[in-house]
Amino acid sequence: MNTKIIIAIDAMGGENAPFKNIKGVSLFLQKNKNKDFFFNLFGNEDLIKKELSKYNISSDQYKIFHSSTTVSDEETPLTAIKNSKDSSMWNSINSQITSNSNITLSAGNTGVLFVVSRMLLKTIEFVSKPALAGLWPNEKGMNVVLDLGANVECDEKNLIDFSEMGAALYKALFPNDSPKVALLNIGSEEIKGTEILKKTHAKLKEISKNGDFEFNGFIEGNKITNGESNVIVTDGFTGNIALKTAEGTVKFITDSLKQSLTSNFLAKISLIFSFFALKKFKDKLDPRKFNGAIFLGLKGPVVKSHGSTDAVGFYHSIDLCYRIIKGDLMNKIKSNLSHINNEIK
Amino acid sequence: MNTKIIIAIDAMGGENAPFKNIKGVSLFLQKNKNKDFFFNLFGNEDLIKKELSKYNISSDQYKIFHSSTTVSDEETPLTAIKNSKDSSMWNSINSQITSNSNITLSAGNTGVLFVVSRMLLKTIEFVSKPALAGLWPNEKGMNVVLDLGANVECDEKNLIDFSEMGAALYKALFPNDSPKVALLNIGSEEIKGTEILKKTHAKLKEISKNGDFEFNGFIEGNKITNGESNVIVTDGFTGNIALKTAEGTVKFITDSLKQSLTSNFLAKISLIFSFFALKKFKDKLDPRKFNGAIFLGLKGPVVKSHGSTDAVGFYHSIDLCYRIIKGDLMNKIKSNLSHINNEIK
Repeated sequence: MNTKIIIAIDAMGGENAPFKNIKGVSLFLQKNKNKDFFFNLFGNEDLIKKELSKYNISSDQYKIFHSSTTVSDEETPLTAIKNSKDSSMWNSINSQITSNSNITLSAGNTGVLFVVSRMLLKTIEFVSKPALAGLWPNEKGMNVVLDLGANVECDEKNLIDFSEMGAALYKALFPNDSPKVALLNIGSEEIKGTEILKKTHAKLKEISKNGDFEFNGFIEGNKITNGESNVIVTDGFTGNIALKTAEGTVKFITDSLKQSLTSNFLAKISLIFSFFALKKFKDKLDPRKFNGAIFLGLKGPVVKSHGSTDAVGFYHSIDLCYRIIKGDLMNKIKSNLSHINNEIK
Repeated sequence: MNTKIIIAIDAMGGENAPFKNIKGVSLFLQKNKNKDFFFNLFGNEDLIKKELSKYNISSDQYKIFHSSTTVSDEETPLTAIKNSKDSSMWNSINSQITSNSNITLSAGNTGVLFVVSRMLLKTIEFVSKPALAGLWPNEKGMNVVLDLGANVECDEKNLIDFSEMGAALYKALFPNDSPKVALLNIGSEEIKGTEILKKTHAKLKEISKNGDFEFNGFIEGNKITNGESNVIVTDGFTGNIALKTAEGTVKFITDSLKQSLTSNFLAKISLIFSFFALKKFKDKLDPRKFNGAIFLGLKGPVVKSHGSTDAVGFYHSIDLCYRIIKGDLMNKIKSNLSHINNEIK
């Protein structure tokens, strides 16, 4: 790619905005010296300038687009189209059409981001429903998991689209590895689960012959992290429950561990010796490293950062945006989808 | 209760049977000196006698019922009714009708256990579908979670029955605490989730006024372990995914922790100092302590132990059986169900 990757950033979305957003930008600039990227920053110009002045950022790395309003956390998807016009979020999405942004990143209101993105960017032809994909660590590296909550109910066409789009995302992010798709179910035998899952299983077995991905069949929840599959496909209800349950379990266990390791004098001494080992453990599971959910299926890519993350978390979602465009996600999605939709054309 | 609690044990079910089953019985006898219980043991008489002879167990604590066959792990629910007749599993269930057993425990084939239990014991009048309930630790103690996989799809009548039966189980097991029911969903607002969940929410709000339980509304997966609710209700598909995902996450994290704490010399030294603290941590999360899923909704209670657990895990599921009968589960279920079914009668 000869031209620069242009990332549109909603600088006003999420807790502690624009502080964490701009600090995230400065972290990304520090770590990437190749300068093959550029930021379109959306929000209150004065506030953004004030934050930018804290860091040594060259003005040829960004352009500020003043936006007069910000989408609040209380805004609902139902009224968002009317109320969020000319907000930093709206303008950062719209800049994929009106300016030259390649991708949009926001840590603001998820529901509004989804509705406005869908309205402005439109769904890709032949995609039945857009989905929300996320990263999830496994024993060997990283999974792509989708849908994480955009669609409460899904049919086999949706799940097949998710498989192709998830495989495209995996290839874009991890070009040296190959996507292995699995369908989340309550058993690994072909006779298990709902009718929709059984039909999807049969179709994916056929479709996977086109070479876009390996198909590993059904997997159970306890196999998500074993690394044998790396694209985990499910409906938005199940995906959301699985993700949140995993998050809750991590918190429950690390809380218990902390409590145990500070419960007596000897254990506290042990912390001196295990400091670096525990730091490595904590680093590996640091949720900021997986920060960023990707809306797949729209004509332009949009990434949602956790609202409550800090500058480091926001940096990781900027890095995700960069890798998505560098990995040519949109063309990979189009190519994958063309394989399954040839018959329709 | 003046009469003894009689527990029917499928001595041949699960890995390492009857070794672990009988050792589990001996552990239970060691820890409970009050002798208000009795075991009906089902399986190969010679093998059971050989195992019993290893421990100092008084013969007035048990009776052996010879069963000529054992249900294999390969047996499917479809052919089980025909093939499993006179097996140790079949006879241990049937002894609730033909002998005087109060409850049945098996570590054998789950699908067969469910089908045969349902066929022999029959579903309680007014219960739409039986469910599989399990224990799940939380920050303050223990949750009852159901359904864990008996029913792939559930409607509002099923979910309401599960709420009443789960609350009854909670009261039977934890008589000093009160049941707080929550519905697992992808958001806590009343407008979130499927139509079935929204209808169930509205009905449970009304029903909870009868005093069988507090109703905490919807909770997300990351709140399962926070202890604010203790009866978590969901359909069998979602419950199974959530449970297995949590199991996988625990394994992933403890593997990572082990790896980190043995990765360098200093960390290994730390293990000397943290030995007791880490043991406490491990003990708290020991899955053998939560071993045992309960089939709720049949006219007799049946408990399923993990097939792969050891004697300690099997002991814990015997203890669960004992507490279920001691806590008068069946009458508590009938009482709760009568509150919601008065209108039907």
